[in-house]
Amino acid sequence: MYKKIDQKDIDFLLTILDKEDVVIGDDINEDYAHDELAGEIKYPEVLVFVHSTEQVSKIMKYAYENNIPVTPRGQGTGLSGASVALYGGIMLCLTKMDKILELDEENLTLTVEPGVLLMTIAQYVEEHDLFYPPDPGEKSAAIGGNINTNAGGMRAVKYGVTRDYVRGLECVLPNGEVINVGGKVVKNSSGYSIKDLVVGSEGQLAIVTKAILKLLPLPKKAISLLIPFPDLALAIDTVPKIIKSKSIPTAIEFMEREAIVGAEEFLGKKFPDNSSNAYLLLKFDGNSTEEIEREYENVAKLCLECGAYDVLIADTDERNESIWSARGAFLEAFKASSEIDECDVVVPRDKVAEFVRFTHDIQPEVGLRIKSFGHAGDGNLHVYPHKDDLDDKTWHERLNKAFDLMFAKARELHGEVSGEHGVGYAKSPYFVESKNETYINLLKGIKSAFDPKNILNPGKLYN
Amino acid sequence: MYKKIDQKDIDFLLTILDKEDVVIGDDINEDYAHDELAGEIKYPEVLVFVHSTEQVSKIMKYAYENNIPVTPRGQGTGLSGASVALYGGIMLCLTKMDKILELDEENLTLTVEPGVLLMTIAQYVEEHDLFYPPDPGEKSAAIGGNINTNAGGMRAVKYGVTRDYVRGLECVLPNGEVINVGGKVVKNSSGYSIKDLVVGSEGQLAIVTKAILKLLPLPKKAISLLIPFPDLALAIDTVPKIIKSKSIPTAIEFMEREAIVGAEEFLGKKFPDNSSNAYLLLKFDGNSTEEIEREYENVAKLCLECGAYDVLIADTDERNESIWSARGAFLEAFKASSEIDECDVVVPRDKVAEFVRFTHDIQPEVGLRIKSFGHAGDGNLHVYPHKDDLDDKTWHERLNKAFDLMFAKARELHGEVSGEHGVGYAKSPYFVESKNETYINLLKGIKSAFDPKNILNPGKLYN
Repeated sequence: MYKKIDQKDIDFLLTILDKEDVVIGDDINEDYAHDELAGEIKYPEVLVFVHSTEQVSKIMKYAYENNIPVTPRGQGTGLSGASVALYGGIMLCLTKMDKILELDEENLTLTVEPGVLLMTIAQYVEEHDLFYPPDPGEKSAAIGGNINTNAGGMRAVKYGVTRDYVRGLECVLPNGEVINVGGKVVKNSSGYSIKDLVVGSEGQLAIVTKAILKLLPLPKKAISLLIPFPDLALAIDTVPKIIKSKSIPTAIEFMEREAIVGAEEFLGKKFPDNSSNAYLLLKFDGNSTEEIEREYENVAKLCLECGAYDVLIADTDERNESIWSARGAFLEAFKASSEIDECDVVVPRDKVAEFVRFTHDIQPEVGLRIKSFGHAGDGNLHVYPHKDDLDDKTWHERLNKAFDLMFAKARELHGEVSGEHGVGYAKSPYFVESKNETYINLLKGIKSAFDPKNILNPGKLYN
Repeated sequence: MYKKIDQKDIDFLLTILDKEDVVIGDDINEDYAHDELAGEIKYPEVLVFVHSTEQVSKIMKYAYENNIPVTPRGQGTGLSGASVALYGGIMLCLTKMDKILELDEENLTLTVEPGVLLMTIAQYVEEHDLFYPPDPGEKSAAIGGNINTNAGGMRAVKYGVTRDYVRGLECVLPNGEVINVGGKVVKNSSGYSIKDLVVGSEGQLAIVTKAILKLLPLPKKAISLLIPFPDLALAIDTVPKIIKSKSIPTAIEFMEREAIVGAEEFLGKKFPDNSSNAYLLLKFDGNSTEEIEREYENVAKLCLECGAYDVLIADTDERNESIWSARGAFLEAFKASSEIDECDVVVPRDKVAEFVRFTHDIQPEVGLRIKSFGHAGDGNLHVYPHKDDLDDKTWHERLNKAFDLMFAKARELHGEVSGEHGVGYAKSPYFVESKNETYINLLKGIKSAFDPKNILNPGKLYN
């Protein structure tokens, strides 16, 4: 159905791009055939590195006219295969569009190209005493990918998700036209919000070539509480009580001893405590120690009343750093111990305990180790079935069964298939199953309004 | 093109609704032929009051099959004509779907029907020590209308707009099917965000029949600062400096003496001060007086450095109330003095001064009094050309000229046609002029995915 790449197409690309930015055949590194998820290996026919909106526009116009599929790509840190070139064609890599274009302190905005890394943004704005709140674990992700998955991260409890910090976008449509949506304006009630439609669309509607991000003043102080509990159920059941107590921590994470021990081994560093079965990790931020103390004292008391063994307070940068770097290493530590796959469901906050219990309970039935950690405070769980020493066939059978059960449970709890990692192709069957036909047809209708030829990132979400 | 209502249609409606909920012909009150804006008078052929999602669904299914246009309607407090039945047909009024369905304190959500009034929500959640931040001036608006215009209000500087507080929606599609989008979940990365598309779509894509709203803990304390300046330019030029100083007030409003005097006359109550030409009105909220004081002391100092005469502090509920009730009466006071029309542009915060100056400067050229007040802190201006004693023809000629100039200026400053009141039919020509054909075609394509027969609220935005 799609046109295959031939020499004429390569010649065209070389009129726009330097030779080093057009990679074909065996020269394409295997990294570009998958994302961070273990999954299908699919190579694009040609991999191009773009440097400007104009180049993106010209390539899309050509691809559109010639019916060539295009897969936009950032750092490839995704976990659901959204940036894999399922149909070959052109992989359009935006990592070299990595400039910070403008810090506007009077409007509190930062204008960036899509290839700027999250860690670069964090560091840059902090140097100016400003703050970009979304904080996914993967700091080497590019902002373009974060926008395309509406990434969430640790600080969503208090600060919300990527969507809440995207003020405006420059996008290239599938036919090569460039549009601007939103801007530096704080409010907007001028037609359907194309901006909010592109955010979270997994690169299917348009290619983001510039983003205007909303910033906040940097909170002057942060304190973390590490709270050991006798078991996970007790820990997680405490979370809705914290929310109900009207304290809103910046982050509420839950973790089990096994994840901590794994991270200690992986990092070669000791966590402040690993003697309990389960932990809540809370962060509070604000502009003064007193303000934060007032907040966390109530929460600490509440946790002790709910059965916590203790409340360990990390009020130095060093202790904070040691705790949060361990938290950031959980996924890598799991991956180092076994091949894994991931379920990134989100459920209402008061259903987290029930869902996590469910993932524990089904382990004997499905015959897999299933470990989890995640954002208890916002209901977004990261659940990891482990392959261990199973053969591929058994692993996939058991994995499918585990996914079937978990996604069905998430639906029962009024949850959604993905909280922050997106659907891609890997979670597509579960996503489609979670919606009725009318809903999927709406998505297809929207896609068709943007991309009647379905050339931009086909095969994802609902195909 | 659309089918006209006949007795058979009325008979059908009477199988679903009680007699008192189906109003036809001369029995339709003139209020339902326009909104709060002085504009065209257009009656629906039949006005119905619905009580349930099921009724909405049945009526839409019937209308869809019979090609009858439907205009959803809440309190009719809009200012751009979005809820006026331009093509006759059925006006579907949701004011009797006015129940608060659930307060969920563990998930911090409030589930409501669309006809619940803003003031009802505010009072209800405050009684539970909770807070629904969006705060448009018109407290008698229904939440459904607020969702459809992505209403903003005074507290957007710190807290954002309606979109930021809509977690989930139940909607009836034009063909009568019911869909749920979002939910109680805090994060979501599961397909294009239909929820965010429906928010702000002015009732053109679906009829909102239920909304799950996000709440926050109620700030324990609020303090307002009334800051007199020698002139408006000096006042407004101070705003980006406040933002740059990394203090984020809850609200930053600007006003001129004339608006204050008008409100005093209208309300028969004295404002704390009316001796200066221009004022900034700031609100700060937080959980303790010390926390708020720390915030506002810097800002007060900054304002004095920028030329303010004084900083008047309102730290009692009574003084706060007297100031903000006057602020809330500006529009009514203008309306009492003359027929007016409105321009609700939003520009980047650092362009507010330039835009307001422009509206002052064009008065002699267009031959109209043009008064403004608005949300200096978020760049959303409410600018009111006054008819005074002009005849209709002259008024409309001059008004068109004023709008042409102002919307052109807004475009030049990278602003948008509407910050919070929507486009409706009244601002439609200016909206269309502000976007290119590609953009408008995207909107039409999206509309077509939801409503291929274009029966739901036709004639708005881009027609």
